[in-house]
Amino acid sequence: MTHPPLLPFQTVYGAPQPLDWLCLAPHPDDAEIGAGGTLIRLAQAGRAVGILELSRGERGTQGTPQIRVQECARAAVLMGLSWRGNLGLKDGELADTPAGAHALAAALRAVRPRVLVVPHHRDRHPDHFGTYHLARRAVHLAQLRRADLDGEPHRISRTLLYQGNADIQPGLLVDVGGVQAQWEAAVRAHASQFTGEAVSETVTPEIIERRRARQSYWGTLARVRYAEAFEAEDALLVDPLAL
Amino acid sequence: MTHPPLLPFQTVYGAPQPLDWLCLAPHPDDAEIGAGGTLIRLAQAGRAVGILELSRGERGTQGTPQIRVQECARAAVLMGLSWRGNLGLKDGELADTPAGAHALAAALRAVRPRVLVVPHHRDRHPDHFGTYHLARRAVHLAQLRRADLDGEPHRISRTLLYQGNADIQPGLLVDVGGVQAQWEAAVRAHASQFTGEAVSETVTPEIIERRRARQSYWGTLARVRYAEAFEAEDALLVDPLAL
Amino acid sequence: MTHPPLLPFQTVYGAPQPLDWLCLAPHPDDAEIGAGGTLIRLAQAGRAVGILELSRGERGTQGTPQIRVQECARAAVLMGLSWRGNLGLKDGELADTPAGAHALAAALRAVRPRVLVVPHHRDRHPDHFGTYHLARRAVHLAQLRRADLDGEPHRISRTLLYQGNADIQPGLLVDVGGVQAQWEAAVRAHASQFTGEAVSETVTPEIIERRRARQSYWGTLARVRYAEAFEAEDALLVDPLAL
Amino acid sequence: MTHPPLLPFQTVYGAPQPLDWLCLAPHPDDAEIGAGGTLIRLAQAGRAVGILELSRGERGTQGTPQIRVQECARAAVLMGLSWRGNLGLKDGELADTPAGAHALAAALRAVRPRVLVVPHHRDRHPDHFGTYHLARRAVHLAQLRRADLDGEPHRISRTLLYQGNADIQPGLLVDVGGVQAQWEAAVRAHASQFTGEAVSETVTPEIIERRRARQSYWGTLARVRYAEAFEAEDALLVDPLAL
Amino acid sequence: MTHPPLLPFQTVYGAPQPLDWLCLAPHPDDAEIGAGGTLIRLAQAGRAVGILELSRGERGTQGTPQIRVQECARAAVLMGLSWRGNLGLKDGELADTPAGAHALAAALRAVRPRVLVVPHHRDRHPDHFGTYHLARRAVHLAQLRRADLDGEPHRISRTLLYQGNADIQPGLLVDVGGVQAQWEAAVRAHASQFTGEAVSETVTPEIIERRRARQSYWGTLARVRYAEAFEAEDALLVDPLAL
Amino acid sequence: MTHPPLLPFQTVYGAPQPLDWLCLAPHPDDAEIGAGGTLIRLAQAGRAVGILELSRGERGTQGTPQIRVQECARAAVLMGLSWRGNLGLKDGELADTPAGAHALAAALRAVRPRVLVVPHHRDRHPDHFGTYHLARRAVHLAQLRRADLDGEPHRISRTLLYQGNADIQPGLLVDVGGVQAQWEAAVRAHASQFTGEAVSETVTPEIIERRRARQSYWGTLARVRYAEAFEAEDALLVDPLAL
Repeated sequence: MTHPPLLPFQTVYGAPQPLDWLCLAPHPDDAEIGAGGTLIRLAQAGRAVGILELSRGERGTQGTPQIRVQECARAAVLMGLSWRGNLGLKDGELADTPAGAHALAAALRAVRPRVLVVPHHRDRHPDHFGTYHLARRAVHLAQLRRADLDGEPHRISRTLLYQGNADIQPGLLVDVGGVQAQWEAAVRAHASQFTGEAVSETVTPEIIERRRARQSYWGTLARVRYAEAFEAEDALLVDPLAL
Repeated sequence: MTHPPLLPFQTVYGAPQPLDWLCLAPHPDDAEIGAGGTLIRLAQAGRAVGILELSRGERGTQGTPQIRVQECARAAVLMGLSWRGNLGLKDGELADTPAGAHALAAALRAVRPRVLVVPHHRDRHPDHFGTYHLARRAVHLAQLRRADLDGEPHRISRTLLYQGNADIQPGLLVDVGGVQAQWEAAVRAHASQFTGEAVSETVTPEIIERRRARQSYWGTLARVRYAEAFEAEDALLVDPLAL
Repeated sequence: MTHPPLLPFQTVYGAPQPLDWLCLAPHPDDAEIGAGGTLIRLAQAGRAVGILELSRGERGTQGTPQIRVQECARAAVLMGLSWRGNLGLKDGELADTPAGAHALAAALRAVRPRVLVVPHHRDRHPDHFGTYHLARRAVHLAQLRRADLDGEPHRISRTLLYQGNADIQPGLLVDVGGVQAQWEAAVRAHASQFTGEAVSETVTPEIIERRRARQSYWGTLARVRYAEAFEAEDALLVDPLAL
Repeated sequence: MTHPPLLPFQTVYGAPQPLDWLCLAPHPDDAEIGAGGTLIRLAQAGRAVGILELSRGERGTQGTPQIRVQECARAAVLMGLSWRGNLGLKDGELADTPAGAHALAAALRAVRPRVLVVPHHRDRHPDHFGTYHLARRAVHLAQLRRADLDGEPHRISRTLLYQGNADIQPGLLVDVGGVQAQWEAAVRAHASQFTGEAVSETVTPEIIERRRARQSYWGTLARVRYAEAFEAEDALLVDPLAL
Repeated sequence: MTHPPLLPFQTVYGAPQPLDWLCLAPHPDDAEIGAGGTLIRLAQAGRAVGILELSRGERGTQGTPQIRVQECARAAVLMGLSWRGNLGLKDGELADTPAGAHALAAALRAVRPRVLVVPHHRDRHPDHFGTYHLARRAVHLAQLRRADLDGEPHRISRTLLYQGNADIQPGLLVDVGGVQAQWEAAVRAHASQFTGEAVSETVTPEIIERRRARQSYWGTLARVRYAEAFEAEDALLVDPLAL
Repeated sequence: MTHPPLLPFQTVYGAPQPLDWLCLAPHPDDAEIGAGGTLIRLAQAGRAVGILELSRGERGTQGTPQIRVQECARAAVLMGLSWRGNLGLKDGELADTPAGAHALAAALRAVRPRVLVVPHHRDRHPDHFGTYHLARRAVHLAQLRRADLDGEPHRISRTLLYQGNADIQPGLLVDVGGVQAQWEAAVRAHASQFTGEAVSETVTPEIIERRRARQSYWGTLARVRYAEAFEAEDALLVDPLAL
């Protein structure tokens, strides 16, 4: 009698399934803050959207892994996600390592996203640029037939970078004016981080005001009210009719 | 009795009309070589597409303005353009001047493109980067209600840059594999330039082979057979469902 | 009997005098929007601060030159400026020309600023980057003993660039959290532009909300509430004790 | 009785010897595809040229390490190489690690190249940029007298980067028009990769057509028929008489 | 009975204490060569200034760890440092590793610098850019309340990069013309490196002449006689009155 | 009876002749300061080398056009130039204008250089970047058969940029250690500029010391004693045997 392979991740919400978009988050809440509005728009349009946290955020000042998992699940509902998981890597030490890359590659094979959204390499936080570098190697491994990995090889079609804590020069902007309420609710679902004392620039009750101002900044450049900023990892194949 | 304002340009093909896309070409044939496949795809999809030459190419070694106008008209048919015009500025001296900017701005008001495609500022040829700089000022003038210009103010929605003679690092690629025959025919319509002696890197019978190799280079990067390369002038507002 | 040389500019407020900082504005209100908080802080600290508009904004949709001069004078009072002038160049055509450079160089000799603040060359608006390029030549001419100019040669110590309508990657941020009320009042003094219909991204009643969000964006990066963004033209000689 | 130190690499062709140029390849065939024409030209001119593969390509879909070694040897003959070796690091995990750096540094001491050619850091493939980063550390170690390494310290004179799978902006181009036949033969020697099914952008029977188009792209920029693209790691000391 | 935590570093001079500036040096003498003049100026002004070497330079050709510690102590006196320490990591292998990052983070908590000065990531020497990357992670860990670290969390206010062996494009210059004699003495205190045979570009009796020429180069750009070059890691919050 | 066309330039030394290298200088002495050592090396090797000043430097504080022409002629002898000329454009107003471009293009046709050396566009001085932009257009015009110009069309093979007053990031370095005495003599031949009062960063008796320190800075990077820095305008076609 055979048994299914051990999954390299914990499911926090929904069930592992083929996804259209998957957003990688170093810690719980990073995806909501940086790309939440875009993910909500996609889910509203019926796309299968997921988030995979790489760590449980256990070194964060506020909250515990148990509490944060519950917050993640609640936010998943509010965002309309199809799946949310956690890879269980070590908070504070996210980097391009063979073990991490194999774990992430196995997860990518399991949920098979078409579009992968990763933190921008230009960021202050080592876990953020560490996730970027880890993802580049995992994307490669996931498509190798001879990798030491369970699951069918899978090729990501497109990789996008989202903004973390640092200034970037984005090539792509997404209008998130129509989903402000849902976005705010999804961020606020991480109550352990955004109520109580301000312990850092990101762990603060001001987070909505701060990040909404950022969305306004990008929105002004795109002549909409609020926008999220992305960069394409490679030159983007586009349909000219959509320009 | 009033009469219509003098048009700042000569019509080479079709009739001035509101356009979806307009490509600015320093000389006859530049648009075909750099962005022809994309323009053909748009026209095939029913979009109103135009080309405006800024000069008549009168300083080119081959051909005469009369011959080149006829070639332009023939290429317009082959590409399915809605309109093609010529601004009559001086070949070899295209630059950001008040007179040139006003002439171009008036033309923009007349044909009112949504998307404007201009030569990349990173180019060897002074007329190419001169056209880029001239266009930036004309785009601004065209939208000013108090500009000394005929016509209704008009705002361009989106400006794209196409590749000329120099290497660029494009952010956007367009698949032109399906229109290779039409593209080649449109370029070859400029027979005065591409038959007979090779007088420069661009005025040569090898032009198709050379530029097709370029399309292959960009295509390989985008995992298609042939692609044309563009850059967006500003961060691009995109629909995430189209990514 | 000799008479004083004709001044190359009109005084809008105060009297021409040696200035510590001078901000060049393509049109009335540009300085307030982009660098107003910083200028107010300097004036509050007793520095002699001035603004020189290069044009009267006569091609703007709203207001008239007469109205805008009055608005400029009122804003000057609110900001605590020592002087405000207007160079009277042609709106929409600001660029690096010999005549413009000589006029601006003569003005620089007249008010002799130590620090010059100019629009960033990375901007959508041709008058903005045109002012940048014009200023570079004028700064050079102003220091030449044999320039065809009245006045004593003058050398600018430091040139800073301020943000206009486009995204920049600033090297320097200035905390403007303490002068929000004054900054808002100074911008609103340009009532012809910021009341009534929104005619563009900058000429809109939303201007305060939009630009305050921008100040919040920069402020977050600097761990203050609101900041304005600048770039130094050259490597900045700094006192390490001030870092 | 003493014995010679264990060599840190396997010799695939020829004998370890002082080399003029050494090209580092993450996997068998990378050197041929990216820099093969240039290496052939050097060998034809009598220079001692070598290739060192860092891995045996054991995770590639096609071929086996045994087959690929034979292909490497055959290509070495076709290219006129003096030596070809394999470092035996783990395919898919090439990165800057102490063990890898010491192994590579020992190899550099053994074959003592004057010019080292490495993959460009701007590449999609983690093994490619991993090789670049690994090489930077190994180059340093190889010259340290007190490194824990056998062999005499050796200093590389010049490091060049060659193009892998991504677009680069090369500073240097080498005319490879005269060695097209040899280059094609050397690439085709890797028959396990380039016959049969296309499994990726690089493992495909189209490889010659694709990479020749790339050579045509660079060649057009340099006014020759075909060229390979390189970048110098540092500012290049040049003889002005050779410019 | 409790005992104080084991310090993660050796003290070479002075006593661990809260510092205003701390300069990280991959090896003994790197700080003097790249940032010595600036550190001397700060110490002369009464600031508490320290240097932390990450390795003992045991792989350098000249000197021994014992001799180099004595040279470090002597240079510390000459520079007026408050403290100098050594982290004891492995020379030649400095990189972003979990163990190294925890050791460095613990040291940062112990001496609690306000300003941290690190090697520039653009450098030929792997230990130099390795130190930069290691420091980025350590700066993050040092501020985490839940890091596995002794000591109180500490946040660095400002990170500056100093020049090592490669060309950089500095944003900040510091006048070091007034401390040339002290700077030269501090560098020469590392006698094992700078007397006797020239073994590399940096380990040479010419070091003063070479680096003084560099200071002259930067000084010329800033209109002073000699300057050291720095870059700010993030946009710099500045007091406009100090500009 | 026909007469030869009016030359668009004045000859200062030697006779107009086909040149191997031509260096464009905005003012007398710019070529010596920025590229003098390289030009001397070429002349010593028997190459026909020339300098063309674009202006007579009539707005400089020191010297007169008459004196400076004599200094130019003397420096030409010391450098071993084959020809030196002056285009007579207006000092302080060098820029990309049609008249200037035609004058320069005619000069290029007259002396037909293979390699053209122009000021870097990244420079503080408007005449320096103005010369760069003017040269780009003139290079184009010179090769057009139908340009309104006397002389046979001529195509420049290679354009290099030399350093002026600003920091650059050069790709190419030339060893000038062997011609220090000749270089110093050639610079000092411009006695009106470099004796007497220091009136600017470049017009100062310290010029030799300052620029030699710069040569030392570049030399250190290239492991030679003194070097001059250049950048290639386009990717450089190189002979791999010369690397």
